[in-house]
Order: sequence, then structure tokens, then C-alpha cells
Amino acid sequence: MVGVKHKYSIWGGRFKNQTDAVMENLNASIFFDHKLAKFDVAGSKVHARMLAKQGILDDEEATSIQQGLDTILTEIETGKFEPRVELEDIHMNIEARLAELIGPIAGKLHTARSRNDQVATDFRLWIRNQIDITVGLIHELEVALVHKSNENIDTIMPGFTHLQCAQPITFAHHLLAYVAMLDRDRCRFLDARKRLNESPLGSAALAGTSFQIDPTYSARELSFDKAMLNSLDGVSSRDFALEFLSASAICATHLSRLSEEIVLWTTSQFDFIKLSDKFTTGSSIMPQKRNPDAAELIRAKTGRINGAFVALLTVMKGLPLAYSKDLQEDKEPVFDTAETIQNVLPAMTGMINDLEPNIEMMKQSSEFGFSTATDLADFLVRKYNLPFREAHQIVGKLVLLAEQKSCNLKGLSLEDLQGVYKKLEVDALDTLSVEGSVNSRQSIGGTSSTSVMNQITYWKEHLKCE
Amino acid sequence: MVGVKHKYSIWGGRFKNQTDAVMENLNASIFFDHKLAKFDVAGSKVHARMLAKQGILDDEEATSIQQGLDTILTEIETGKFEPRVELEDIHMNIEARLAELIGPIAGKLHTARSRNDQVATDFRLWIRNQIDITVGLIHELEVALVHKSNENIDTIMPGFTHLQCAQPITFAHHLLAYVAMLDRDRCRFLDARKRLNESPLGSAALAGTSFQIDPTYSARELSFDKAMLNSLDGVSSRDFALEFLSASAICATHLSRLSEEIVLWTTSQFDFIKLSDKFTTGSSIMPQKRNPDAAELIRAKTGRINGAFVALLTVMKGLPLAYSKDLQEDKEPVFDTAETIQNVLPAMTGMINDLEPNIEMMKQSSEFGFSTATDLADFLVRKYNLPFREAHQIVGKLVLLAEQKSCNLKGLSLEDLQGVYKKLEVDALDTLSVEGSVNSRQSIGGTSSTSVMNQITYWKEHLKCE
Amino acid sequence: MVGVKHKYSIWGGRFKNQTDAVMENLNASIFFDHKLAKFDVAGSKVHARMLAKQGILDDEEATSIQQGLDTILTEIETGKFEPRVELEDIHMNIEARLAELIGPIAGKLHTARSRNDQVATDFRLWIRNQIDITVGLIHELEVALVHKSNENIDTIMPGFTHLQCAQPITFAHHLLAYVAMLDRDRCRFLDARKRLNESPLGSAALAGTSFQIDPTYSARELSFDKAMLNSLDGVSSRDFALEFLSASAICATHLSRLSEEIVLWTTSQFDFIKLSDKFTTGSSIMPQKRNPDAAELIRAKTGRINGAFVALLTVMKGLPLAYSKDLQEDKEPVFDTAETIQNVLPAMTGMINDLEPNIEMMKQSSEFGFSTATDLADFLVRKYNLPFREAHQIVGKLVLLAEQKSCNLKGLSLEDLQGVYKKLEVDALDTLSVEGSVNSRQSIGGTSSTSVMNQITYWKEHLKCE
Amino acid sequence: MVGVKHKYSIWGGRFKNQTDAVMENLNASIFFDHKLAKFDVAGSKVHARMLAKQGILDDEEATSIQQGLDTILTEIETGKFEPRVELEDIHMNIEARLAELIGPIAGKLHTARSRNDQVATDFRLWIRNQIDITVGLIHELEVALVHKSNENIDTIMPGFTHLQCAQPITFAHHLLAYVAMLDRDRCRFLDARKRLNESPLGSAALAGTSFQIDPTYSARELSFDKAMLNSLDGVSSRDFALEFLSASAICATHLSRLSEEIVLWTTSQFDFIKLSDKFTTGSSIMPQKRNPDAAELIRAKTGRINGAFVALLTVMKGLPLAYSKDLQEDKEPVFDTAETIQNVLPAMTGMINDLEPNIEMMKQSSEFGFSTATDLADFLVRKYNLPFREAHQIVGKLVLLAEQKSCNLKGLSLEDLQGVYKKLEVDALDTLSVEGSVNSRQSIGGTSSTSVMNQITYWKEHLKCE
Repeated sequence: MVGVKHKYSIWGGRFKNQTDAVMENLNASIFFDHKLAKFDVAGSKVHARMLAKQGILDDEEATSIQQGLDTILTEIETGKFEPRVELEDIHMNIEARLAELIGPIAGKLHTARSRNDQVATDFRLWIRNQIDITVGLIHELEVALVHKSNENIDTIMPGFTHLQCAQPITFAHHLLAYVAMLDRDRCRFLDARKRLNESPLGSAALAGTSFQIDPTYSARELSFDKAMLNSLDGVSSRDFALEFLSASAICATHLSRLSEEIVLWTTSQFDFIKLSDKFTTGSSIMPQKRNPDAAELIRAKTGRINGAFVALLTVMKGLPLAYSKDLQEDKEPVFDTAETIQNVLPAMTGMINDLEPNIEMMKQSSEFGFSTATDLADFLVRKYNLPFREAHQIVGKLVLLAEQKSCNLKGLSLEDLQGVYKKLEVDALDTLSVEGSVNSRQSIGGTSSTSVMNQITYWKEHLKCE
Repeated sequence: MVGVKHKYSIWGGRFKNQTDAVMENLNASIFFDHKLAKFDVAGSKVHARMLAKQGILDDEEATSIQQGLDTILTEIETGKFEPRVELEDIHMNIEARLAELIGPIAGKLHTARSRNDQVATDFRLWIRNQIDITVGLIHELEVALVHKSNENIDTIMPGFTHLQCAQPITFAHHLLAYVAMLDRDRCRFLDARKRLNESPLGSAALAGTSFQIDPTYSARELSFDKAMLNSLDGVSSRDFALEFLSASAICATHLSRLSEEIVLWTTSQFDFIKLSDKFTTGSSIMPQKRNPDAAELIRAKTGRINGAFVALLTVMKGLPLAYSKDLQEDKEPVFDTAETIQNVLPAMTGMINDLEPNIEMMKQSSEFGFSTATDLADFLVRKYNLPFREAHQIVGKLVLLAEQKSCNLKGLSLEDLQGVYKKLEVDALDTLSVEGSVNSRQSIGGTSSTSVMNQITYWKEHLKCE
Repeated sequence: MVGVKHKYSIWGGRFKNQTDAVMENLNASIFFDHKLAKFDVAGSKVHARMLAKQGILDDEEATSIQQGLDTILTEIETGKFEPRVELEDIHMNIEARLAELIGPIAGKLHTARSRNDQVATDFRLWIRNQIDITVGLIHELEVALVHKSNENIDTIMPGFTHLQCAQPITFAHHLLAYVAMLDRDRCRFLDARKRLNESPLGSAALAGTSFQIDPTYSARELSFDKAMLNSLDGVSSRDFALEFLSASAICATHLSRLSEEIVLWTTSQFDFIKLSDKFTTGSSIMPQKRNPDAAELIRAKTGRINGAFVALLTVMKGLPLAYSKDLQEDKEPVFDTAETIQNVLPAMTGMINDLEPNIEMMKQSSEFGFSTATDLADFLVRKYNLPFREAHQIVGKLVLLAEQKSCNLKGLSLEDLQGVYKKLEVDALDTLSVEGSVNSRQSIGGTSSTSVMNQITYWKEHLKCE
Repeated sequence: MVGVKHKYSIWGGRFKNQTDAVMENLNASIFFDHKLAKFDVAGSKVHARMLAKQGILDDEEATSIQQGLDTILTEIETGKFEPRVELEDIHMNIEARLAELIGPIAGKLHTARSRNDQVATDFRLWIRNQIDITVGLIHELEVALVHKSNENIDTIMPGFTHLQCAQPITFAHHLLAYVAMLDRDRCRFLDARKRLNESPLGSAALAGTSFQIDPTYSARELSFDKAMLNSLDGVSSRDFALEFLSASAICATHLSRLSEEIVLWTTSQFDFIKLSDKFTTGSSIMPQKRNPDAAELIRAKTGRINGAFVALLTVMKGLPLAYSKDLQEDKEPVFDTAETIQNVLPAMTGMINDLEPNIEMMKQSSEFGFSTATDLADFLVRKYNLPFREAHQIVGKLVLLAEQKSCNLKGLSLEDLQGVYKKLEVDALDTLSVEGSVNSRQSIGGTSSTSVMNQITYWKEHLKCE
């Protein structure tokens, strides 16, 4: 499709007065709904076949319509189809082109159908397709994260709470948290797909039709699970679009968290990872800069997706049945969101594939801030059968003492230890290595290499990847 | 639980200086997280049982803790448990009370656990419970709508597009559109439940624990499907809360649409239904008013639910792993939304149960605006094998003629008819009755009594109601 | 400007591999920031003049740059300027074109400037221009409403509360409520303009510059009130964009309310007004329809504006100083909102200018529902010195009696009246005419013709219109 | 006021059946609108005085009402006023209490008034008061930032773009950027105050009143600038609340940015500042932690304020005039936002007052990443009259060379320098000190101590602080 000519230039010549232009500007949807073109043709072809099967069209008519639609499809795919603004939307543009190609028989295609069920069908087909693409892209990102994890089972880094170093973990473990989030995102899209996969074709304007149609046949031919049960619902509901937006917003939120971390990790202060040049840019004024632009942009794109969900929720609020023109505002937020989510997912996959951890710096940072103090507390609980709360207090005192002495916990003397809790012996300090800490956490979901390898095995099987 | 004392009055006496008060005010969550109390006890009981099973607590310790927790549960259920602000949150309040009841052994409960996995567990349990309640309330509303539909299979009303009378439908058909929407809402909550139903208990602060715990046992005892696979995910993720909010927002949007219609239908101008006194109120200055307050409030409540979703999306945007204090802001939007959705659903159910259609007025209104003109066009297509587009134009001319003559289509003479399309005969006018129109629409999802009865049968079976 | 070539087709040929395409797709802003072109040239011309004045450029250099920029401006205005995607944004495109035109001297234009202060300057200039346009369009709508009001000072209609007929008012009075709202909207835009009207030029990358520049001169030449006081603020802040979006969202909300009323008023049931054909459309399947599409679309457009505000708030949340790439996401929500608000305002103005009230139907409807009962209560207060609450109860009883007798209040007999309150006489019923009711409300802001004429006089003077 | 009894417990005893409870739950606003109590009394006192002045009440009646209202005010202020749920809202509760105190004369207070104008008046008074408080709190934060800046004019830190070290700046300069943002926030609230400061009292239910009232007198007595011009606008508009929310959202966004920075600066990796204990907390499991809880919470609170704005925008969308019950949903988002903004502002002020910069670490960090490379480029422009773009390329090559040699720019030899650009001499390296860089930026808004002192002087005068 060559693309809609820019609206303002077209209007320049076409309209007698400004008010008309204003209305056309508001009313026409061809500027964006041309994206539905292929699905509109697909829906029309099935509708024509169904009409023929039911004897509403004769064979000759049906063949003529099919051929005309095939021609249009080719025009669309080869970029030769040129929609016209004055025909308002993609449906009328295709119908008009069909009439040019095959004459008045084209008018028979609209038997037992209305733009209301037609657009609902097209939009469901379009979103279903986008879900399939998105699900694939999330899968690719999950695989990238699993691979990067596999390389970093022994890469120790600080686990943060409140962005303070809390306990040592591994880089693999950290990345696998995102696999878990993303896998729920993927399932959320799949649940949305399942719910939207019903055919509104046959709802006609709002009340169904008096023609002897076979909506179940149409549904099956378009790979819908079934025909919708209620024609008003068929033309009026947009919860399928809202659910797509919501799944996208939650997924984008997950990506924004990982992006924030990438921005942090690439600062001079953290210096945990190095991004490839592909995903960074320089500065026009500061020649030395390598900026994590991709991560910043992915983080920021969350905004427009949240905004899109709010936009459609606002549109739908308090809208009476059945079709109202307000529903024309359903498409742009969904189109923009689909494009955005499909831009940010592969960008994140690319960044993950390319990034290189700075193993030494991560390890060093994991030792900041008495990060194994909890391990010591756990040791006291086990060895001396202390209530955790009491062990916690003992360790607190040791930390305070070490801070006063400007040393780490390993730097405390036996005297220091026993000054705080008299049963303490030097074996306590053996618990303080970050490797020991990491590998002690063998519970399900823990950060030890055993647990992490279990996670990786699970995901490889679940995601069917190696 | 007696309830948290009002914060400002408490602070009046308690704080030395204003700055401290400010921090306490920001920091304490007990003002709202007391709602988690029962689930916190339930989680702690299971945790203690697991610790005992694993030999981390001995039997005596475990029994003592169980008994203490049972006492606290009774205090909560009988309203005798009094949380204190200086203990910040419900978890510390319960722990402190346990220490009062059973002494230092209480401190052993926190072995191999952190507030981070504790609060994540509590919050999942709480939302799961709210989902179960919500799903039940949606079911009740669906049943009410099915019953009201069953009484109104022959109640003819205008079907609207653009709020203009478009085609006659039945009141049953209209209400059943909402059953379809609400049923998808119900399934959306059930899908959210399925996804959240994993146990974060055992994630500890963020990295798992070095104690030999059995997270799978804890999960099973709390009726979770499994233990979470990654401890960072366990303490950091809140997509389960976002998904609950999103399902609520979409459901509230559906309710806002029905509410808007109820407000319209009760105007003097529409006069389609009468609400019961229970769901209307009078005016302080206009004694004659009967205001559809419940419908207006349900419509408006959509706002706060949309707002709650935006609130939590904003909180989560760009938040690094693992726990940050920002996550404390996850609860109030969810609590408010759950309360709201549980207020509006039964209010809507009550309104639907009580409302009485004004059958005469609806029928009369369904004849406005040439509402059966499409039927005439369809008739022309069938009888004269015209392309629909041509039939559409003929009917358009007839409508114009009728408007000029200030009559309806039935008022046109044979001469009028043949002036527009010369083959026309008077049988064409037989298609113009609203009853005929309604009952001709026998396609799946159509408004005919056959189709509507099929819908009702489907829902009665699906919803297991009579 | 010819317009940016479609991104995907360009990339098809240009990129070696998909990952690069992904990054380019995320990173390039030329697809939308070409809208800044004219303002970018204007800013650059002033910057060059300032550099010359300060002796940083010599006269020849300055003249050459000015001429080059003038050439580019002409190219932009005549649609001959063709931005290239690989140059990423409008600023680099213009700079590159300047280099083509005048050689390496072009590089001197970037002295003492950075893209960061350049884009902030351009964006402020662009929004300031949009505010000026918007303020003018609101003014036009206000004038249209005042004119329509002027014609309808005596057109009586029901005043609604809860969409129930409450008290008779005039159509003029109703429309003037929107003038008051819109005038506040206009002032909100003007306040935003005042606040944004400071020049960031000279902030350079973030810290100012070591060149001896004169930011005050640049500010004055660009009609800014002054140079910004802090360079970090200059490049990092976007509250001016947020405030523009917020003013737009509030204005759109007002328009959505009027739109909703127009949709209601054009229903067969209300039938209060008739829209002109320009702002209505027909139906593809129902030949008789006249749909208030413009009003529906204006109502719906509120969604995308609310969404835009949420989008940018989300982007800005938690963004550290100074410039981050996230800020590139500031433009599209603003561009879309400005275009939207400039589409909906004239559409509403056109609708208002063209609409014709159905005076008879409005009047008749204003008598529904005992709409003058409050007047009777007020009469009782005045005549019998009753507390209003007691008068309210008396009238409540009379309404009940009239409902039982299926008459209106005027239909009650003296006996009926005195059965409720024995002092009552028939003069009480004189208060019940809708004209009497309307014209009794002479307080400031009331609906009487006197008060309404005062409002109209005020607005004509305030808006400087006749 | 003792506070409203908890709703569920009250309902337990009071209601006959669940449906009623549901309606009461939806309908009653006393759970939150008790916050309006003092303003409701103030408005009523003025209304009574006005009625007396106009001869609508006699002196005795007026005196009695004034005394009754004074008694109620005392009860409210001493916490003895106990609202009852069955009276629905604060207005009816006060009216009922007045009737208890002074008998049926109380009913005369409602003459020429309705709950609709009463609640609009109360809500405006309440918000106006909140604006005054908020403006004061912003002022305090500005003063704290100015003071902290004053102490840190020579504290050098890295200026960031993309969170990468870009150019050295001073801590004072950084903090003063927030003063500029906050000062615009303050003005935004003041503009909102100016716009809301009109009195709706006298609008009555919607149409004004037939009593000879003096709305201008009432307005003046309540310190409003004037009486509203249109009674429908008076009772129906809530843009004043939306504007308050919007100003709050923008302000909260600014605070979220500063909070994010504080969180970053307190990490072990950045280590730029130390917060006082008052604004940090420990960990239940990690004894060594000092968590920047206050900053995290302030950052997160942005969410609920954004949500509140969305909530009210959603409520208002498409709401017909005049009063609808939906408007009852206007208060909670505003109440919550006001409370939130008043919690976060002093918390931020406290943090700023108490924080201590780690001067050594900041300085050291400011030298990272070739942060003075731009200065070198500027030097080349000045000394050799090069176009900036060419100088930029030369410096880029030098940076690359230094990276290859693992040294900083100062470590390059003359040979190295001239290998890149043959005219270079060693004086070029003198430009590379961070102090020199900072103090060279003397343009308005720049980071040099001169410019920063100018900013401080400006703010001290503007904020009238020392």
C-alpha cells in the first residue's frame, strides 16, 4: 500500500470551506485504519464464501467477488492500493475498489453484514495477529535471558534492597527473575488471545440479520473458536482491546525495570556491564560519552503504553450500546502500543545478547555493606539455637563495632566477637564469604548455583530452547 | 480488630518534633495493611509448621507458636487486636503480640523468612480471596441479568447506534450483551488468580535462605499451586496486583456502560424503566425527584479504579530489583479497588433485580426513526436480487419521501413506492413491523426470540443457575 | 516539507541486519520532530546573531549562516526540505543541510550550544505557538456560544440534576455555563504560556558555557520574557509540556460534557436540537439515520488527551537530572494533543453555530416532573414564613397527591391543597408556570432573562465581541 | 470530631437486609466529607448573615442560627461532634445537629440554598485552604534547598546526562535546579487558587433562586473574589479540583526526580551523600542496612497523585449538566492528594536539611569519564577559531587515544596531541581541571560560583528568606 496521502495537503484542494475540513479531519479514519486492509479482505472473502454456501450469492457472483478481492489483496501487498480520504475508512475504500473492478455485483458483498460487525472482525483479527507476533518476541527475549544466565551462573553481584547492597546473588539469578516475569507476560497475552478469539461476523449492524447466514462457518474459516453469542456484544465490546493494552502495559513495566537497571549498571559508579555500540550513542558536545539510549528509550516507552490504556478506558467509560462513533478512537492506542511493544522487545533482546558483565567489579561490589551479615545471623540461629531476632541483634552489634573500627566483619578479633556474644568462636567468620553465602541458598528459588541450574533447566524445557 | 487509632491524634502526643511525625506518617503502613492480618497469621502458622517438619523448630516451640498465633487470630476476629502505630506494620504488630504471649520463642518464627517474602505471601493470599469474592459477585449479577432477560424475551425496545434508534431489538437481548461482557470479566479474574497462585514464601529477603526449608510444603498448605521459581521474582514482582486492577478496571468499564444506560432509561424523555426506591434518592430542594443515584455512583466509581491502575503502574515503572520501599504503595490502590468493585457489583445486581421495564414506552420508542428500514432493504435484496447497496439507496429515497410527507414508511402509497422503484408492491410494507423485524433475526447472536432463548439456555447451563 | 519517508520502507534497504533497524527505529525522532523545523531555524538564526554580537562569530560567518538558514526556511515552507532518517532528528538534518549549503562554517553555529538546550528552546517555541492558536480557537467557541445564547434568552428548557428534570432554565443560561468553563480553560493556557516563556538557550549541554554569550539577548529576540536562571533546569524540565497537556485535558473534559449533551439532545427521545448535515453522518445499513458523529468524536477524543498526560507523567517520573534519552518521548503526546485540541474546538464551534433548538419540545419537556415544585416551596417560605424544610415537606405531599391523581400540581383543587396545609390558597398555583419560575431567578448567576442578559453583556465585553 | 464510626460495624446492626447496606455504602459520603465540617459551618454562618441582611431572616432567627453554628463549630474543634451515617453527608449532619440545638428555626438556614451550591462552596473553601498550606510547604522546601546550596557553592560533583558523567557542576547548582522547578509549582498552585476563588453560593440547586439574596456579600465574607456568573457552572464545574490535582501531580513528579537522585546518591556505588537516621530505616533481616525509605516513598507517592488526577478526569468525562451524583466522587482523590502532598513536602524538606554531601567522593566522581572534554573542545574553538564540529572531532580522537593508553587526557604527551592536531600545544591541557571547567561557565544559568551566587541572591530575595 502506497500509504495515505498526507491529510492536510489533500484537504487543501478538496474542501470548499474550513468547517467541512474540520469535520473530515475528525471523521475520517483511513489515516490509521489502512492497517486493517489485509484482514478486511480476508474477512470479506470468508463472508462471500459463506454467502455462496448459503445460496445467498450464486456461484458466478461469488467467484467474481473472490477474484476481485484477490486482486485487491495483491494490490495491497505490492503497495499499489491507494486509499482515498473521501471514502473515509478502509472498508469503504476496499468496497469502492471492488466496484471498480467487478461492477455492481460488488454491492452484494455487503448483504447480511454491516460496517459494525466488519470492523469488529477486522480489529480482532489484527490484534490476534499482533498477539502472535508479541508472544514470539517475548519468547526470544526469554531465550536471550536464559542464555545469558547460563553463562553467568557463577558471576556474583550484589543483590539490592532499597538499592543498597543487601546480599550477594548471581547475575544469572537476577536475570532469571525477569524470565519469570516475562513468561507471565507471555501467558497474559495468550489468555487475552483465547478470550478475543470469537467471531462477531454476523452481528450485522447490531441485531443480527434476517438472512439465513452461517456465522459458525465464517468463524471457523477465520480460525475463530466460535461465533459470538450476542450480536450487541459483537459490535459494542472492546474489552479485547483493553486486555491487549493492559497486558502490554504490564509487560512494558517489567521492561522498564530491567532498563532502569541497565542504565544504573552502565554508570561509571556501578560499572557492572558494558553494552555494545549498537545500543549506545555518543554526544554532540561530549565526545567521550557512551549513552545507554536503548535502555532509556525502552524505559520511557512505558509512558505511551500506560497512556494508551488510559485513553481507551476513558473512551469506553459510560458508552451506551450498541455502536457509537466514539469506538473509532479504539484503534490508534492499540496500533501505537503494538508497534511500541514490538520495537522495545527486540531492542531489549539485542541488548541482553550483546551485554558483557564486568565480573570483577560486580564481585567486588557484592562485598560492600556487610552483605553477608544475614548469613552470620543464620549461622548463629543454627549453631546456638537462638531465636532469629536475637541473632539479628548480635550481628547488628558486630556490624556497629566493625564500622567503628573501619574494618569489615572478617576483620574483627575473637575478643571483639566474644565481647558481643560470649559463646562466639572464629568459625563464625567462615560464613562471611560471598561465594559461601551464595551457594548456601539452596532452597527452591534461591540464588545458589544448584537452584539457578534448576531454574535454567526448567526454562529450557518450558521454552523449548537449548 | 478495633481499628487503628486515627493517626493525627496519635501523633499529637507521641512525637517529639514535627519532622519525626512526618517520617512516621510516610513510613507506617499499619493504617491500611491491618487488612492483611488474618492472612498474615495463616502464613505464619504454615511457616511454623514447615519449620517444625524440617526440624528447624522443635515440637514444643512449634506448638507454642501455633497456640500464640491462634490466640491472635481470635483477637483479630473478635475485634480485640489493637495494632500500634509505632510498630509500623501489621507484621511487626503480630510478631510483637506473639512475643507478649509466648516470650522470646516468638523470635524463632522469623527464621528463614523476611518481611519481604512475608508481605508478598500475605498480599497474594489477600488478593486471591478478593478474586474469589469478586468472581462470586459477578456470577450473581450475571444470574440477575439472565433472570431479567428471561422475563423480557418479548419486550421490544429500540436498538441504538449513536444513541439514535436504529433497529428494534428485545430488552432480553440487550441485557444478555452484558452477561457476555461480565462473563469475560469473570474469566479474566480467574486467569489472574491462576497466575498469582504461586507461593513466594521461602524467598526470604531476596536470595532464598540457607536453612533446609520446604517451600513446596508451605505452598501446598496455603493452597498455592507451587513455590515460586525465583526468589527475586518472589519479593519484587507485583504484576499479580496490576492484573487484578486491570481486570477490575475493565469490569468497572462494563458496569459504567450499563449504568449510563440506566441513567438514560430513567429520564422522563426515555422513560424505559422504573427503578425501585432502594436505588434512588430524593432531593433536598426538589421534592418530586427520584434520582438514579446508584447507577450514577457505579458509573463514577470507574474513575477511582482506573486511577488505582495508573497509580500502581506509576509506582512500578523503572523500579530496580529487589524490594524497594516504593512497593509499600502497592496496597492501597488494590484495597480501595477491591472494596469498590465489591460495592458496585451487588448494587448493580440489586438494581437489575428490582427494575421494571415500561413495556409500552419501549415498544413505542422502537418504532421511532424508521427503525425497520433495514428490513425493507433486506427484503428488496431477497425479492428482487438487488445488490444491498442498491436496495439501500432505494430505501433511502423512500425515507426521504416519508419525511417530506410527515408519515412513516407504512403511510406511503403504492404510487409513492413505485415512484422510487417501479417493481415495488405493497407486500414490501409488511416487513415494517417491529415484531416482524425482531423475529426475523434468527442468526446466531441475533435478537429473535429463538436466538435469545438459545442464549438464555446457554447461560443457565454455563452459570449453573435456573 | 515533503515529509519523512516511511520508516519501514527506508530501513528495508538501508540496514545490514535487523538489530540495527530495531535500534534506529527506537532512536530516531525525525518521524515526528520534523514539526519543530521552523522553530529550529528561528532559534538558530537568533543564536547566530547573538554569537556575532558577542564577537564569537565574525560578520562574514554570521551573514553566511543567516543566509543558509533563510534558504532552509524557504525549503521548509515550500515543502522542499527532505529530512533523512539516518540523521536522526530535525536538528542534525538542518545542520547537515546548512553544511551542504555553506560549507564547514556551518559547524560554527553549534558554538556555545548543545542539542539539549536547542531542543528545549524549539519545544518551548512550538508549544507557545500552539497555545496562541488554541487560545484563539477557544475564544471563537466562546463567541459562538455567546451568540447562540443571545438568540435563546427566552428558550425555556429543563434544567437537569441526575439527568432528571429539576427546574426550568433557559437554553441561553445552559450554554453560558460552558462559556464560563471555557474562559477558565483559556486562562489556564495563558498561565501556562506565561510560565513556559523563559529561554533555555545558553544552558548548553547542562552546565552553561564558557563562551561569553548573552542569553538575555537571545531570549528577547525569541520573545521570551527572560533567560532561564539555571542551566540544569533549562535542559531537564518538562513541566511546561505537562502543564500544556493538563490544560488540554481539562478543556477536553469540558468539551466532552457538552458533546454528551448534544448526543442526548439529538436523540428521538429528547429531540431538543437539530444539528446541521455537516456534523452528522448516515449509516451504511440504516438509511434513515442522522448520527451526531462530531459530538461523539469530540467526546471520545478526551481519551487520547488524558492518555497523553499520563504518558508524559510516566516518562518524567523519577528521571534524574540532567538530560536523559527518555525526554525524547516528550514530543509525541504533546504533538498529538495539540492536533487533537485544534481539531475538536472548531468542530464544536461549527456545531454550535449551526445547531437549531427545537423550542417547542424543550419547553414541553421543561414542564415534566413537577419542575416548579421548588418555586412553590419558596413561595410558602415567603408567604407563610415557614422554615424551608417544612415548606419542602408540604410540597412533597402535594406532589405525592398529584401523582396519585395523575395530574400536575396545577390540577389540584383548593380542597386538595388545604388538605395538606390548611392555610394554602389558589394563588400558590400561580407560581407553577415555567416562565414565572425562570424569570423569578434574578440573583447573580440565575437563569432569569435579566441575569442571562447581564452574563451576555459581561462576555461580549470580556471577549471583545459583538 | 470523634470521627465516623467504622462503616461495616455500623451497618451490621442497622440494616434490615444486605441490599440496603450496599446502597448505603455506595451513597453515604460522611466517611470522607466530614473533612469539610469547618468550612460547612463557615459557609452557613455567612449564608445566615446574608439572609438576615436581606431581611429574609429576622434578627432573632439569625442570632439563634449563628449561636447554634458556633456551638457546632466548637464541638467539631474539640472532637465532640459525632456524625451519623444515616444522615449521609456532613451537610445533613450539621443541619440535623442545628435542629437539635435550636429547633425548627434551623430549617430556615436552607432558604435560598441547596446542597449543590453548599457542597461546591465548601469544597472550594477546603481546597483553597489546602493550596495555602501547600504553597507554604513548597516555600519551606525551596528555602531548605537554597540554604543547602549556599553551603555547597564550591562542592563539585559530576553533572550527568544519560546518568553518565558529562561535565563537572556544583552541588549548589544541582539543587538550585529544583528550586526553579518548585517555584513554578508554587506559582501553579497560586494560579489555581486565583481561578477557583469565586463563590458558587447563591447558585442554589442549579438555576439560582427567587429570593432577594446578595451573593456578592456572601462571596466577600468568605474571601472569594466574586460571586460566580452562572449558577449551572457554579454547581456543575470541578475544573478547580482537576487543576489542584494537576498542579499536585506535576509537583510530585519533580519530587520524584529529586527522590530518585537521593536514592542513587546514597548507594554504596555513588556514595555522594549521607542521610540522617530520621529519614532512613534498618532491615529486619540485614542488620547493616540504612535504607533511604523517605526518598523511596516520596518517589512512589507520585503514583497515587497521578492516579487521583486520572480518577477525577474519568469521573468528569461526558457528565451532563447540572449536578449528577457522580460528582460525589470528586472529593476522595482530592483529599488523598492533599494529604499526600503535605506529607511528602516536609519529608523532603527534612531530608534536604539533614543531608551531608560526601565532598571528596563527589569531586572524585566528577573527574570520571573525560568530563572536561567539552572544555577542551571549547578551548580549541576559541584559540584556533575552529568550527565547533571540527574541534569536537579532534577531542574525540584524543579521548580515543587516552582510552587506548589507559590514561586520562592530562596523561597525553605533546606528541600524542600533535599527532591528532598538529597545532596543539600543552596549554590545552590546562583546560582540563574540574574546578577550571566549573568556574568558566559564567553565563546566566551556568554552574560557576558567580552564576550560582547570583541564583542564590535571586531566590533569597524572591522567597524573602535569608
